[in-house]
Amino acid sequence: MNETWVTVVGNVATAPDFRETSSGAAVARFRLATTVRRWDRAREAWTDGNTSFYTVWAWRALAANVAASVSVGEPLLVHGMLKVQERQRKEDGDVGGSARRITADIEAVTIGHDLARGTSAFRRVSQAKPVLSAGSGSTSL
Amino acid sequence: MNETWVTVVGNVATAPDFRETSSGAAVARFRLATTVRRWDRAREAWTDGNTSFYTVWAWRALAANVAASVSVGEPLLVHGMLKVQERQRKEDGDVGGSARRITADIEAVTIGHDLARGTSAFRRVSQAKPVLSAGSGSTSL
Amino acid sequence: MNETWVTVVGNVATAPDFRETSSGAAVARFRLATTVRRWDRAREAWTDGNTSFYTVWAWRALAANVAASVSVGEPLLVHGMLKVQERQRKEDGDVGGSARRITADIEAVTIGHDLARGTSAFRRVSQAKPVLSAGSGSTSL
Amino acid sequence: MNETWVTVVGNVATAPDFRETSSGAAVARFRLATTVRRWDRAREAWTDGNTSFYTVWAWRALAANVAASVSVGEPLLVHGMLKVQERQRKEDGDVGGSARRITADIEAVTIGHDLARGTSAFRRVSQAKPVLSAGSGSTSL
Repeated sequence: MNETWVTVVGNVATAPDFRETSSGAAVARFRLATTVRRWDRAREAWTDGNTSFYTVWAWRALAANVAASVSVGEPLLVHGMLKVQERQRKEDGDVGGSARRITADIEAVTIGHDLARGTSAFRRVSQAKPVLSAGSGSTSL
Repeated sequence: MNETWVTVVGNVATAPDFRETSSGAAVARFRLATTVRRWDRAREAWTDGNTSFYTVWAWRALAANVAASVSVGEPLLVHGMLKVQERQRKEDGDVGGSARRITADIEAVTIGHDLARGTSAFRRVSQAKPVLSAGSGSTSL
Repeated sequence: MNETWVTVVGNVATAPDFRETSSGAAVARFRLATTVRRWDRAREAWTDGNTSFYTVWAWRALAANVAASVSVGEPLLVHGMLKVQERQRKEDGDVGGSARRITADIEAVTIGHDLARGTSAFRRVSQAKPVLSAGSGSTSL
Repeated sequence: MNETWVTVVGNVATAPDFRETSSGAAVARFRLATTVRRWDRAREAWTDGNTSFYTVWAWRALAANVAASVSVGEPLLVHGMLKVQERQRKEDGDVGGSARRITADIEAVTIGHDLARGTSAFRRVSQAKPVLSAGSGSTSL
């Protein structure tokens, strides 16, 4: 209850870091950057606005497929639950209210390459047998 | 103002129909089906719930890339603006209110293959030169 | 899984119909209309675009509070899960795909009066004791 | 383009700070906290999960109506555009990626009291004449 859902259209800022937890669950993590673009009437052109950054987390099959498919710089859509948390107390006499030491994480439920920017060739992965054998190493792919 | 944004995770139900309008704008249209799945505690398994259907519209580069990348049955995420409109008057003594002759359309701003279900190989398309030459025919691909 | 979340900003088109089901659950239902507005550069004014219609369903405390607070014509935000379902088969030779006999329902998780259009005086309702006594009748209010 | 839309259901953490800018535009700002709740099967009860914090910004009529209607502790829905920005460079040897000094702001387009938690009495404000006379002071209310 009270989940905050977001869909972010942006670019991959760091290579996905794929791991398996000690319990055998696959997890992938990467940074995503999204830049708002506005139409500048005077110049009759799009101009870049603010850039927002998120840490995206993917689990299980999604983690494995992200690790197998996604590279730095590629355009993505990420859909998932947002968490914006203070990790530590305020360090200074912050009055204004909005500047704090926080993290912005998205627990992704689905991710895709942005077809507004290019083409993608999709290959279905059987859900019966997992993509990755947990066998040899924890970060293989 | 007042746009209603949705992100739908579903499957392609009809092959994308790609055209160029008389003014030269590319447009692609397809049907998307999404089925809610619920965890059944008693059976300890996912069960299918209701299926919703949408008509998805893509324009320009997105239309061309969808036509080049998307096939029936593939899992997608579609992000865009929703329109739910009555096309015709009520045909019967509808009292309850929710049954009407309407259409549900999504004006997509971005679409991607669902990496929770498989892998995708992305290839960026230069925005300088359009993907498709409008040359010979209007629905070719 | 696969729920489609929407937030619709619109106006109440029909008075909320409040009932209690035979099992004692409160439910309220009303129609919501939302009209997209676009900035017309030539005229330098907002113009109305398409209007979308939804049937909104609220349950339990939300149902009771909607019945106690919401009137026809008031501006609302509705946040919930969207279902767009075909109730009956196609009646005609519809090839194109988007015209079908369907319903668009929102299972609301929260609803509020739109403070962009006016003020609201809020009064918290204790969750311990239900707003409505189910006492005398099932549709009283 | 590329706006990230969110709808956050939460509670007002700080009293709205209402001002008029030097150009006469009304702006209101407050902190919003939202706590995810999960169903604990073992205990058969809802348990609180993580709490996320946002700084919400409202402008013009919305700002004035928020200032006139919203108090600390009240439950709200906020719908708007999310910005998550790094204000300063990293201060430490942060390798993992998700801990940075950032702010999470929502540019609200609409806000409402949460009818899942209580009732609200709405009063429409004419858009022709502004709610607040800018007369005497810039931060009055």
